Amino acid sequence: MISSNTAPQAAPKKVVLAYSGGLDTSIILKWLQTEYDCEVITFTADLGQGEELEPARAKAEMLGIKPENIHIEDLREEFVRDYVFPMFRANAQYEGLYLLGTSIARPLISKRLVEIAAQHGADAVSHGATGKGNDQVRFELAAYALNPEIVVIAPWREWDLGSRTKLLEFAEQNQIPIAKDKRGEAPFSVDANLLHTSSEGKVLEDPAEDAPDYVYQRSVHPEDAPDTPEYIEIEFEKGDPVAINGEKMSPATILTELNEYGRKHGIGRLDLVEGRYVGMKSRGIYETPGGTILLDAHRGIESITMDRGAMHLKDELMPKYAELIYNGYWFSPEREMLQAAIDLSQEHVTGTVRMKLYKGLARVVGRWSDHSLYSEEHVTFEEDMGAYDQTDAAGFIQLNALRLKLIAMRNKRVK
Amino acid sequence: MISSNTAPQAAPKKVVLAYSGGLDTSIILKWLQTEYDCEVITFTADLGQGEELEPARAKAEMLGIKPENIHIEDLREEFVRDYVFPMFRANAQYEGLYLLGTSIARPLISKRLVEIAAQHGADAVSHGATGKGNDQVRFELAAYALNPEIVVIAPWREWDLGSRTKLLEFAEQNQIPIAKDKRGEAPFSVDANLLHTSSEGKVLEDPAEDAPDYVYQRSVHPEDAPDTPEYIEIEFEKGDPVAINGEKMSPATILTELNEYGRKHGIGRLDLVEGRYVGMKSRGIYETPGGTILLDAHRGIESITMDRGAMHLKDELMPKYAELIYNGYWFSPEREMLQAAIDLSQEHVTGTVRMKLYKGLARVVGRWSDHSLYSEEHVTFEEDMGAYDQTDAAGFIQLNALRLKLIAMRNKRVK
Amino acid sequence: MISSNTAPQAAPKKVVLAYSGGLDTSIILKWLQTEYDCEVITFTADLGQGEELEPARAKAEMLGIKPENIHIEDLREEFVRDYVFPMFRANAQYEGLYLLGTSIARPLISKRLVEIAAQHGADAVSHGATGKGNDQVRFELAAYALNPEIVVIAPWREWDLGSRTKLLEFAEQNQIPIAKDKRGEAPFSVDANLLHTSSEGKVLEDPAEDAPDYVYQRSVHPEDAPDTPEYIEIEFEKGDPVAINGEKMSPATILTELNEYGRKHGIGRLDLVEGRYVGMKSRGIYETPGGTILLDAHRGIESITMDRGAMHLKDELMPKYAELIYNGYWFSPEREMLQAAIDLSQEHVTGTVRMKLYKGLARVVGRWSDHSLYSEEHVTFEEDMGAYDQTDAAGFIQLNALRLKLIAMRNKRVK
Amino acid sequence: MISSNTAPQAAPKKVVLAYSGGLDTSIILKWLQTEYDCEVITFTADLGQGEELEPARAKAEMLGIKPENIHIEDLREEFVRDYVFPMFRANAQYEGLYLLGTSIARPLISKRLVEIAAQHGADAVSHGATGKGNDQVRFELAAYALNPEIVVIAPWREWDLGSRTKLLEFAEQNQIPIAKDKRGEAPFSVDANLLHTSSEGKVLEDPAEDAPDYVYQRSVHPEDAPDTPEYIEIEFEKGDPVAINGEKMSPATILTELNEYGRKHGIGRLDLVEGRYVGMKSRGIYETPGGTILLDAHRGIESITMDRGAMHLKDELMPKYAELIYNGYWFSPEREMLQAAIDLSQEHVTGTVRMKLYKGLARVVGRWSDHSLYSEEHVTFEEDMGAYDQTDAAGFIQLNALRLKLIAMRNKRVK
Repeated sequence: MISSNTAPQAAPKKVVLAYSGGLDTSIILKWLQTEYDCEVITFTADLGQGEELEPARAKAEMLGIKPENIHIEDLREEFVRDYVFPMFRANAQYEGLYLLGTSIARPLISKRLVEIAAQHGADAVSHGATGKGNDQVRFELAAYALNPEIVVIAPWREWDLGSRTKLLEFAEQNQIPIAKDKRGEAPFSVDANLLHTSSEGKVLEDPAEDAPDYVYQRSVHPEDAPDTPEYIEIEFEKGDPVAINGEKMSPATILTELNEYGRKHGIGRLDLVEGRYVGMKSRGIYETPGGTILLDAHRGIESITMDRGAMHLKDELMPKYAELIYNGYWFSPEREMLQAAIDLSQEHVTGTVRMKLYKGLARVVGRWSDHSLYSEEHVTFEEDMGAYDQTDAAGFIQLNALRLKLIAMRNKRVK
Repeated sequence: MISSNTAPQAAPKKVVLAYSGGLDTSIILKWLQTEYDCEVITFTADLGQGEELEPARAKAEMLGIKPENIHIEDLREEFVRDYVFPMFRANAQYEGLYLLGTSIARPLISKRLVEIAAQHGADAVSHGATGKGNDQVRFELAAYALNPEIVVIAPWREWDLGSRTKLLEFAEQNQIPIAKDKRGEAPFSVDANLLHTSSEGKVLEDPAEDAPDYVYQRSVHPEDAPDTPEYIEIEFEKGDPVAINGEKMSPATILTELNEYGRKHGIGRLDLVEGRYVGMKSRGIYETPGGTILLDAHRGIESITMDRGAMHLKDELMPKYAELIYNGYWFSPEREMLQAAIDLSQEHVTGTVRMKLYKGLARVVGRWSDHSLYSEEHVTFEEDMGAYDQTDAAGFIQLNALRLKLIAMRNKRVK
Repeated sequence: MISSNTAPQAAPKKVVLAYSGGLDTSIILKWLQTEYDCEVITFTADLGQGEELEPARAKAEMLGIKPENIHIEDLREEFVRDYVFPMFRANAQYEGLYLLGTSIARPLISKRLVEIAAQHGADAVSHGATGKGNDQVRFELAAYALNPEIVVIAPWREWDLGSRTKLLEFAEQNQIPIAKDKRGEAPFSVDANLLHTSSEGKVLEDPAEDAPDYVYQRSVHPEDAPDTPEYIEIEFEKGDPVAINGEKMSPATILTELNEYGRKHGIGRLDLVEGRYVGMKSRGIYETPGGTILLDAHRGIESITMDRGAMHLKDELMPKYAELIYNGYWFSPEREMLQAAIDLSQEHVTGTVRMKLYKGLARVVGRWSDHSLYSEEHVTFEEDMGAYDQTDAAGFIQLNALRLKLIAMRNKRVK
Repeated sequence: MISSNTAPQAAPKKVVLAYSGGLDTSIILKWLQTEYDCEVITFTADLGQGEELEPARAKAEMLGIKPENIHIEDLREEFVRDYVFPMFRANAQYEGLYLLGTSIARPLISKRLVEIAAQHGADAVSHGATGKGNDQVRFELAAYALNPEIVVIAPWREWDLGSRTKLLEFAEQNQIPIAKDKRGEAPFSVDANLLHTSSEGKVLEDPAEDAPDYVYQRSVHPEDAPDTPEYIEIEFEKGDPVAINGEKMSPATILTELNEYGRKHGIGRLDLVEGRYVGMKSRGIYETPGGTILLDAHRGIESITMDRGAMHLKDELMPKYAELIYNGYWFSPEREMLQAAIDLSQEHVTGTVRMKLYKGLARVVGRWSDHSLYSEEHVTFEEDMGAYDQTDAAGFIQLNALRLKLIAMRNKRVK
């Protein structure tokens, strides 16, 4: 039976926790043990956030987690192949600009939490997202969509450890080691994975103020980027990148590589105020070096291989698709419907794009494909040998104009 | 009565010609006189293309046009105020990227052609657009929408002067002076106005090949732009820019100024393959220096002053709106309906955006407004004094999850 | 300051209650007095539900409400003019079928609640909607949109009077008179106003079972309707009906009249399972006699007066518009944006429609208008005297086919 | 090479003609032989139009067509299975009402024309649609999409046999037998197939006038339908009907059966003015007896088996989907994208609907399914045993209201 999980009737016995190994999720781990008196299973995933995972194992063990209850997984290939690339097929940008780097990682984490829960017979999962953000929604909608009976524990919505001081006290009381640099408050909050790094809060809370330089961690400042442009060629197959400069690579490798190009040239920085699903606006600094290159390159290869009708439909569907991902509806029938339409449109999105990278900017400067719909024969300013009969245009215009003429006649008549 | 204009029944007696003063439209002028034996009225407009207009007067007179039949007008303010700015309120981008610089100029030219025709009692208008492009459609749909009885003469679809050689022969036979640099073929074709310059054809016809440097005429190469970023503040009122760095300016002046900033920093270059309304794909090089800054700045001010619901609706409507303008339906009821919705959304889009301009890139780095919806009180990582109750999020998630849970239960049951 | 109203910090001192005079809202009235120890102001509106309002005054006085705190208003004209008709301009149908009769009444009630609260200096409003339905959402979103500082008290979500027995006990303990027919449980729940009557719950909860005949209260059974069809002519101005059979009437009068026609002919019954905003599906029996006639008639007059481009855009926007109203977002910027677009489309929706009413069915059988876009001259099978040149169609088809041909060539090449 | 087919360069040698055996297409047959001096192959298809096909064979032979060049095919099952049912999955209605009965038949005819052309090595196809209607566009877009090199001959746009008199003269001169009832002009024009019968033109050209009774040929007048309602149960699997009253049937059989029910009860008549793709409005009388029942039944089974998110997306996509079919873009990538999304949504649209048929009206009165998402447990007015926590609604409303509150605060502040 589905029951409302707001106030779980029976206290969960086993909980799978999304565990980073950091101070906050270590406190959650301890809090779950003490508050719920339950067995905790930790799940630590490498989604390309750029941190060692093994310390998380040691820390979990130190906090009393049984070795068989510690899960550490490298999900980078799955993340890029099954989440990032499908999303880029849509050219998804939330509110016109945001490449959804955080949003797209949540469903995969929830999927693994739920799967590990099934494996251990656990009745609950837990995450460290706060009650003001979108991530709690994304984690939980995904979890419920995959297992309607799972209980989700969101400690930040439940406990009374709302301030830094209380958290540190709790850590000390529970022998949770506190790294020196975690004593003070971080000047802003960070989320990272292979697609992006986002920073928000504290020093970034005034949207009128420029973000301080030190916020950017994933890319050089455009001013410090090389003074000479670099050109790369990205090869696509059915909408996904498969090679750079002729070298075939796996999905995670290719995104890693693009990140490196983007980092070097200061590409992919975004300073954005966005509308959160939970109702308020927030300001974030996003760095999506490889993704920014990928978006432009993908549009570039689509431009010669995808028909106008398909492309315009796709463009109309995109904002809704991006909104669904942002709001946490990856595992929803409507996202899957849109994905089916989008994926079909990519069947011929195969070919190569040449990009110029320079001082923060990635620009398409050439594209070619065996699947090209571009017909020099039709478009040429030169004699086209009968490929296109210009007089056809007269009839085309007349019939398209007919309804406009009828309106104009009517308006003249009745005004 | 509306009649089909494909083969105008009665030959027109008076024709208003969109006349640039250049070789091609001078040939059209002469051809109209000889082919149709009609009185020609010339209309030459300054839309900010950066050319002197007075030589067009002299040339028209030389070709036998009566002084009272020569119309030369500065339409820059009207163009920016009534066409460019309304379009930018929508953040319109065709196929995700193109800022519609050519498309948006056509309706205004047609409007004036039709108005001047009415003033002179002329029964036809004429333009110099070819039969393969979008511009013929835009000119003619606009003309028919404004006067359903007007006849449109499109010489490029009618005459047999299809090659350069024939054109030059015709010019020589008719004493039309040919500038020395017009003897040879231009290496590509150019259209320009205050919003943008587009280049296409000939050397640009292979989309695999980089555009040669000399194609870009409106902006410095990013590599040659200043090594130091420049910051500007753009002030908006109800969605339109009204001041730069605190100085109020008219619409055309502000766009001219933004163009200057863009030009200097190499901003607004676009190398695009696009789907034409007439069915084939074409490749264009666009330079929209001021417009590119304006688009980002406008999104920036919207980001703090426009509600999420309004913005997402606007984003969903945008591709259709852009398509309508691209295809020539500015004067259509559906474009006007969308405009009504978009304009309403701009009522509070008032405030200031701070932009960083550097080496081809314009980025928002700050924004503020009395109309801001951003609430530090709600979003803060600090204690929010009760502005937001985090436990509300639990109910929010539960109810949003309910349908997903019901699906999951069903799918488990029937599979 | 906006504060979260889930747990109102300071107990409200004065509350405006949406009061029907019935048992349930009388219990709420008493409960508010005792639970919150606050002054209660009652608001009773005539939206055409077909009940006497004066008994509500007597009842309120009996329950101790001061005469100056009793508001009884006839809102029928405002309801139809400012809510029902604007919605019908959109041909709004939720999930393809539901005419939104309940949804559209809520915003007006909330608007008056908030206005009366302002007038009395009241800090809260209260309603009798349950915690499972859409109405709570509609009441509250509207109230918060109009006054962000208002507190909303929803007793059904707060009290422990969840069962019929407890309610009756409370009524007895508090000397609230209980009509004899209210002792037992009603076999289903009803909401009514000038637009519709909805019935749901209890005997209707199994969607496999036909609704019992006695559920329908607003229309005769089609089987009992007259055996002879009746024809009426409805005249529209700018999208709104203004006369029936040549007789001009006010908005509420015209809807009342259409209801009478619909009732007599058994028109407007709907047995629907719909997706609620709060996540579950529910089954309702709707009777919308006049509205069903109006919808078809409105489509009929649009069919000759509205251009295809406008109509298709409107049709695409409609589902979103209907969803917004259903979900309670009448007072939202996105509903207002859509309304602006829709209203603009109605400028020429003026003319007359002839309807045939017979045994449950309302069908358009004729329509005429000075604003008609229908051109017999163009469409005729007879010789059209040059109004339309059939050879134009060849060019029209060729250019529309071009992209499809290019796709076909490509697909042949690469497969 | 694709060439413009407006004026086919080389005269076609072999033409496949869509041949009904009637007078008009017999004249076309002869005209093709004489005008183009080409070999004609006839294709006569049974799409359920209710006419014998064998007379077409005799007539073709009489007109000199070689037996091996005569193709007569029963396409009813393919038509319903691959065209009608996929379209009904979308609940497609053009301009809100039209079930697209003519539009959906054209692509299949073109597909067979092109396939037969390939089989015979023919270089052209030909059809009997006029130059004012939509059908020419549908035939030709489909043909070009399937074979970009095919030539299409549309005699009605080419010849000078524009009047009835000239046609009859041509027939007499060419020994084409003229049935007695074809001497005079038909009072209106008819198209029929298994899905619908449409009538238009002549006596129907004034949209203010009721259609004469004799126009309706496919259904009894509602007034003459049985005085007692009839109930049927339609079973669906994955969105398609598969059985009536428990009896499994093939696609064409089930539609035939539904037509019989509809005919008997006077269901599915529509008197519509619609906007043609070629620009003018036209008035048609449509009879879609089985399809009208099917549409309502399909919505009925969707209402309990399809999630709200999927359904609302589908409703938003429908107008565009219907427009594409109406305009002739069945074989376009964008129709296929939409179909992919729609088909995915039908995976669980399995179950049974009970319909009441009476005097022109088909109404859903019950529906049940193993795949149902309807949860009595959640929706019940009774105690729900914890399935739904009503207090969740408070948080749900608060967070959904937050943005509206922020708008209201802002508007108060700046006004």
